[in-house]
Amino acid sequence: MSVELPIHGSSPDASYTLSPSKILCLGLNYADHIRESVSVQVSGFTPDVPREPVLFPKTPNTLVGPGEPIRIPSILAEYAFEDARTDHEAELALIVGTRMKDVDPEHALDYLYGCTCANDVSQRNIQNADRSGWYRGKSFDTFCPVGPIVVPIGQMPDIHSLDISCRVNGRTAQSGNTSEMIFSVEYLLSFLSRNFTLEPGDLILTGTPSGVGPIYPGDVVDIEITGIGILSNPVL
Amino acid sequence: MSVELPIHGSSPDASYTLSPSKILCLGLNYADHIRESVSVQVSGFTPDVPREPVLFPKTPNTLVGPGEPIRIPSILAEYAFEDARTDHEAELALIVGTRMKDVDPEHALDYLYGCTCANDVSQRNIQNADRSGWYRGKSFDTFCPVGPIVVPIGQMPDIHSLDISCRVNGRTAQSGNTSEMIFSVEYLLSFLSRNFTLEPGDLILTGTPSGVGPIYPGDVVDIEITGIGILSNPVL
Repeated sequence: MSVELPIHGSSPDASYTLSPSKILCLGLNYADHIRESVSVQVSGFTPDVPREPVLFPKTPNTLVGPGEPIRIPSILAEYAFEDARTDHEAELALIVGTRMKDVDPEHALDYLYGCTCANDVSQRNIQNADRSGWYRGKSFDTFCPVGPIVVPIGQMPDIHSLDISCRVNGRTAQSGNTSEMIFSVEYLLSFLSRNFTLEPGDLILTGTPSGVGPIYPGDVVDIEITGIGILSNPVL
Repeated sequence: MSVELPIHGSSPDASYTLSPSKILCLGLNYADHIRESVSVQVSGFTPDVPREPVLFPKTPNTLVGPGEPIRIPSILAEYAFEDARTDHEAELALIVGTRMKDVDPEHALDYLYGCTCANDVSQRNIQNADRSGWYRGKSFDTFCPVGPIVVPIGQMPDIHSLDISCRVNGRTAQSGNTSEMIFSVEYLLSFLSRNFTLEPGDLILTGTPSGVGPIYPGDVVDIEITGIGILSNPVL
């Protein structure tokens, strides 16, 4: 429900309590990931680049900090899925600093507090089976690791030229750059604020590059973003 | 984000602060509503009775109290929808009292704090257009009116024999009974707790009977449930 993270550039005992009222996520924001998603057969995925941001939420029961385990949900045992597949998705996460409603893209970054790394863990079988949408497959407990620190927006390098990668057991699975985003951070924040009031502390996940793949109990997943560091979580 | 409601049977200055970490909603839980939903052409709706609860979330930006306006979202002007349609949905809402994880149906009611009325306001065009699911069409600001009071579970009549109705400008649009639910409250709570950890204060909307229909600026929507009272909200 809430995660304490150190703040970059502050004294060691300063921390940020991440306790978002909403976690809003962007699907299909990297072209290479759209192409691979067709082969993964995620419901709603077509080779088309979306005309507007594709949104879905995660609920706060998903939040865990660095080092905390990602748990494959026990309810999967009740289903007869062949090839049950729970995937990692490395993402740049934005933390809202000031309430936002109907904000223009030009001013959107002024409303951010900072950035961190996130893993948009996704249970594909449930995500595809539920006819009301992706929510449940994205929102099992522990399905949103964040960290390892919060970097205030003024201390971040250019957020549209960050390397973003994911390693599973030390082997690189995802390797992209935020320059490949289809919708910019400024456009995304503006679009969200035209749909919903964003509150201080809300967390925005900006989509994942290609290379998503399955994780299994015993794995260790590392997500690294330039200027932020490495978010590492074991899988149970 | 939070709503203060009087508590039934308590002193007039006692109130319950409804500030849920999640609002989880059940689709398609009344057979007559499933039949009408096919004609409304909501995406994912088929005439089949679902084999398990159909879940979707609303985010806390949707919460408003009795008498507060439901606002038709201004972003609709950016789309070229013919017959833009925002609907009322009268629902029995449950408030979790104690953290729940993997709870059996037999014990599920012990974890409830109480009940109130809710309106699961739904923007159909967005709900149908979004390929990631129903979330956005269900979660515009003001799309979850609740109230008028909270009734502790021990003071509720049998929750499976409550009349539930919705009137628009005094004309009855929905008129059902919670005895018509496909999944019982006990089963639903247990199912949710096997998927997610439910926290104290979490709000569960249990589905709507048939008769959903459009609301327009200037309308007044009244939702009434036996033992709770009338939740009334104007539309702006």
